[in-house]
Amino acid sequence: MSLEHLNPKSWQRRKKPSSQEVFEKLRKGDISALSRAITGVESKASEDYAFAKALLQQALPFSGNSFRLGITGVPGVGKSTFIESLGIHLIKLGFKVAVLAIDPSSSVSKGSILGDKTRMEQLVKSEFAYIRPSPAGETLGGVARKTREAILLCEAAGFDFIMVETVGVGQSETAVHSMTDFFLLLKLAGAGDDLQGIKRGIMEMADAVIINKADGDNKKAALHARREFQNALHLINPKSHQYPVKVHLCSGLHNEGIEEIAQEIASFRQHSNQNGSLLERRNSQELYWLHQTIEDRLKEAFYSRSEIVNQIKEIETSVVNRKISAFDAADRLLSL
Amino acid sequence: MSLEHLNPKSWQRRKKPSSQEVFEKLRKGDISALSRAITGVESKASEDYAFAKALLQQALPFSGNSFRLGITGVPGVGKSTFIESLGIHLIKLGFKVAVLAIDPSSSVSKGSILGDKTRMEQLVKSEFAYIRPSPAGETLGGVARKTREAILLCEAAGFDFIMVETVGVGQSETAVHSMTDFFLLLKLAGAGDDLQGIKRGIMEMADAVIINKADGDNKKAALHARREFQNALHLINPKSHQYPVKVHLCSGLHNEGIEEIAQEIASFRQHSNQNGSLLERRNSQELYWLHQTIEDRLKEAFYSRSEIVNQIKEIETSVVNRKISAFDAADRLLSL
Repeated sequence: MSLEHLNPKSWQRRKKPSSQEVFEKLRKGDISALSRAITGVESKASEDYAFAKALLQQALPFSGNSFRLGITGVPGVGKSTFIESLGIHLIKLGFKVAVLAIDPSSSVSKGSILGDKTRMEQLVKSEFAYIRPSPAGETLGGVARKTREAILLCEAAGFDFIMVETVGVGQSETAVHSMTDFFLLLKLAGAGDDLQGIKRGIMEMADAVIINKADGDNKKAALHARREFQNALHLINPKSHQYPVKVHLCSGLHNEGIEEIAQEIASFRQHSNQNGSLLERRNSQELYWLHQTIEDRLKEAFYSRSEIVNQIKEIETSVVNRKISAFDAADRLLSL
Repeated sequence: MSLEHLNPKSWQRRKKPSSQEVFEKLRKGDISALSRAITGVESKASEDYAFAKALLQQALPFSGNSFRLGITGVPGVGKSTFIESLGIHLIKLGFKVAVLAIDPSSSVSKGSILGDKTRMEQLVKSEFAYIRPSPAGETLGGVARKTREAILLCEAAGFDFIMVETVGVGQSETAVHSMTDFFLLLKLAGAGDDLQGIKRGIMEMADAVIINKADGDNKKAALHARREFQNALHLINPKSHQYPVKVHLCSGLHNEGIEEIAQEIASFRQHSNQNGSLLERRNSQELYWLHQTIEDRLKEAFYSRSEIVNQIKEIETSVVNRKISAFDAADRLLSL
């Protein structure tokens, strides 16, 4: 006679649903199953590893059916209000909308950028929306991986649009750009340089630039900014986009310009679907993540070796003091 | 009795000057010693390794006294003529000028971008100029290393300005930007988009933008372009430079605008010397090359393993066909 049912640990284990059970519910659009799946993917506990892996394997055939929007802009530019307005608009058109965030700088104590869900009051109440805060994680690579896997799970759960929000001050934009189909950069008109001080290279990733808060007294400055940005984009990206990058005015607060932006997204989607550039972009993104993951892991393995940890600071100092050349220093570290 | 002197090979070996001898001559500004030193650094022959290493070790204490200029622009923009005009101008001011090139795409058969020295007729004749074509090499990392080592040798040989030329169509600009103190981007006004189609991200690296061939019928278009670029630069880089990026008009052919650009370089040099940003830039460049070299070598070692070579194409195909996720694929390759 087995006494296993008397062992509380084994009982607990048996209560935990299998990946098949979770996935089945998730496919039917069950939000709590989706949350449970994403939590599994985000978990660092080794007992969740097989669960997460099995979920992702089941999700893979259902992936790629959404349109993935990347949204960036410095704090204060009004990303949350914009995402809420665009999300509500898309839901009114009959779509299901998921909002994810990627923000490696956030931690539990500081709260993730989407942690304060009250900033998206309407969206959070809709049954057609799913909002998930940024996963905790120390490395951008880790956070990016979890976000990408969350995208797959949301797609399997039937979401039509997935918005990935990031704050435009770090390397995270490159990560978001490399996992989305259309990358929106939010800017302000008439704001000081501080608010415009977005990191180098971000503007060149944009598929569209949105001048937000283009309302009231800001309207005139916004029109001027649109002209300037349009010129700048023409100079930066004369040929690199097959699709012209447009600058849109928007007031997330007054819900103005949202319809035009939604139309622009639809038009880009149709265009890039027809000429194959969407598939091409996604394929090169997959290969980017393959190689990026490999390179991150190689670096991680190298720099965490105790010989390297013990000597790297000293060798770096010698390099900065021109005692040895950077190449010599690399040779030394590599031969440790 | 030793018959060694009858052995022609050993005789040849003994005739080869030591690194000390070469370095001593090089320090006195002997151009053929400098050429011999750079050839040693560029050599792949294992017997030259110790020679090159000893040379670089001797050169290190004398490095950093030049001002290093990076120059980029697409083919046809007039880089050679510009470099010649600027070089001649600097020589007239009493400086010694070295010109190096970095172009990993060039090979012996195609000829390096500076191979055709007749394009710099005046400069090549000056005793105060040294022109060295791009080193041959398959990888950008290898070429960049050789070019950086050539910079050190030129500095030890007493050159005051070192111009590193690159063609603005690849990853080589990042390499040149990461080894120079001032990065000039050459552009054309009134040219078609094809000629303007410089790679993404280049404009944001520029410390100055030069609108070349601003002469004759082009003058009006050049003035217009200057205004547009100035606006664009303001929008891209509102705060990332401590020193404002300026747009200059230039006619390399008619020698117009060169003096203004030379003054701008002198002013930047003084400014960045005084506020410490030059040292800071060079220090971070050294650390960049240390880590870049390590990462390149880690990747090289990984991707050249026979297990990886044998399976990578198949695994990449599975990723592109969404048979396995990019992360799974990375795990598989890393566990081979």
